[in-house]
Amino acid sequence: MNIIHHPDEMRQWAFDRRAEGKTIGLVPTMGALHEGHLSLMQASVEENDLTVASIFVNPAQFAPHEDYDQYPRTLKDDCAKSEAMGVDLIYAPNASAMYPRNYASYVEVERLQDGLCGVTRPHFFRGVATVVAKLFNTTVPHKAYFGLKDGQQVGIIKRMVRDLDFGIEIVALPTIRESDGLAMSSRNKYLSDSDRKRALCISRSLNTAQELMAAGEVDAARVIAKVREVMHSLEIDYIELVDAEELTPVDSIKGPVMLAVAAKVGDTRLIDNMRFDPTDDFHAAPKQYDINTSIDSEAGGA
Amino acid sequence: MNIIHHPDEMRQWAFDRRAEGKTIGLVPTMGALHEGHLSLMQASVEENDLTVASIFVNPAQFAPHEDYDQYPRTLKDDCAKSEAMGVDLIYAPNASAMYPRNYASYVEVERLQDGLCGVTRPHFFRGVATVVAKLFNTTVPHKAYFGLKDGQQVGIIKRMVRDLDFGIEIVALPTIRESDGLAMSSRNKYLSDSDRKRALCISRSLNTAQELMAAGEVDAARVIAKVREVMHSLEIDYIELVDAEELTPVDSIKGPVMLAVAAKVGDTRLIDNMRFDPTDDFHAAPKQYDINTSIDSEAGGA
Repeated sequence: MNIIHHPDEMRQWAFDRRAEGKTIGLVPTMGALHEGHLSLMQASVEENDLTVASIFVNPAQFAPHEDYDQYPRTLKDDCAKSEAMGVDLIYAPNASAMYPRNYASYVEVERLQDGLCGVTRPHFFRGVATVVAKLFNTTVPHKAYFGLKDGQQVGIIKRMVRDLDFGIEIVALPTIRESDGLAMSSRNKYLSDSDRKRALCISRSLNTAQELMAAGEVDAARVIAKVREVMHSLEIDYIELVDAEELTPVDSIKGPVMLAVAAKVGDTRLIDNMRFDPTDDFHAAPKQYDINTSIDSEAGGA
Repeated sequence: MNIIHHPDEMRQWAFDRRAEGKTIGLVPTMGALHEGHLSLMQASVEENDLTVASIFVNPAQFAPHEDYDQYPRTLKDDCAKSEAMGVDLIYAPNASAMYPRNYASYVEVERLQDGLCGVTRPHFFRGVATVVAKLFNTTVPHKAYFGLKDGQQVGIIKRMVRDLDFGIEIVALPTIRESDGLAMSSRNKYLSDSDRKRALCISRSLNTAQELMAAGEVDAARVIAKVREVMHSLEIDYIELVDAEELTPVDSIKGPVMLAVAAKVGDTRLIDNMRFDPTDDFHAAPKQYDINTSIDSEAGGA
């Protein structure tokens, strides 16, 4: 597998390929690849001449008390999986090349970064937006692929791309789930067997909300109360119904919304979400999500 | 003169020219072009296959009480001057295309944006860094040209380019002055005849500082006191001696420094600066400044 470690070398490769007329798809990851990542790679390989997967555990998005040190690092295995998916190049920069001495520059996406996970992780999305801007500047992609599992992240990256004129198409693909409904996450490795079972109420709660809204419930408080009921055995961080674009809480469901939840299961913090648009005729089938045109519902547990 | 008004069209042009193997130089301006701008254009035309000059009065870098509305707008005249210099394309985006509804994304260059002009203009450099990032993403230049007259801006843009992996060479060129020493600025048009004369003590004070430091003075307080003396008739905003890279105040002059001043003359706020490196053998000739290698002194009034 071809691996590039330095930003300058990466940018040179990207501009050279572009000069040859090739289109580039980027799949940004922190490694510890699971089927969610692989589904992004598959889409990119289908839609672009060349696919770059970046693997970088980004220190700027971890707080000092968080799991930066124990985050799983499985580069060799990740390269094998990427190669099997048809990825052409791995970009695995060193932390010292990404954050040199006296590092000072950050991308902030105001308002959208403040709510949901931003409340308990105040510098998280700044770290995400910054590293993604850096990856865009070095891989110079035509399209970049993100999973809807990280729903707030998708909204923030789309806004950043529009605002800062990156001219990159952001493709957001449905959450991939285990057969029992648990959303795939590199952090699921942290779960004990019993916590793994307890965590299932998260996706179950989203299914319940989906059924409620599809049956015509438009009151956000009632939907949230029902979700809270199903998740009562967990230590809930937040359960919120927000506008799908602005990520601000809504009182009633009039347009595209995202129901987003975060909870601790044992020592592990898990997030999940579903999207719902009351103007859609059918809510069952998960479809590709494009924040710029229409918001499609994503069936929890699909 | 070719003019492009929309970011998407600009980016398409830039990538098409790059695919043809052309190098692109960018000269970002707010219009109201003077000889300082023209010297940047001349350098870019010499060093690149194609030169783009951007003309955009950036609302994000003006506070509500500042001069956004009365800032001189002379597009027709600016185009003629640019064409005469050999500029290939004017990029003059509309404010609504640059800052669409629910605009949220900003580039912050921490620490470097806080001192000097950042004290009285707290959002100024955020606005500058953001618009320059946007211009870089749409004009995709190999090199970009800035005047050392805006010394803090140069330091901030260089840091942003390094940190966010833009891979663009920043060329910073000496301040161009009127024959009597006044640093050229689009805002000089605001000055009455008498204020114009009073303003000359600014460049005179920098000459004095230059002579002092060249003669071996290393105490920052003594240099600043002398500058304050020469500028005593003006309403001084700040007089500071800062590290040329980090832009933080120094007590004694051991390495490359920037002496930066800001003062109000009548209703007009003027800034000026000089650079000094005690390790240089000769301090007389203004040379090209590169923050990444060595800092050369800039003779005030040259």
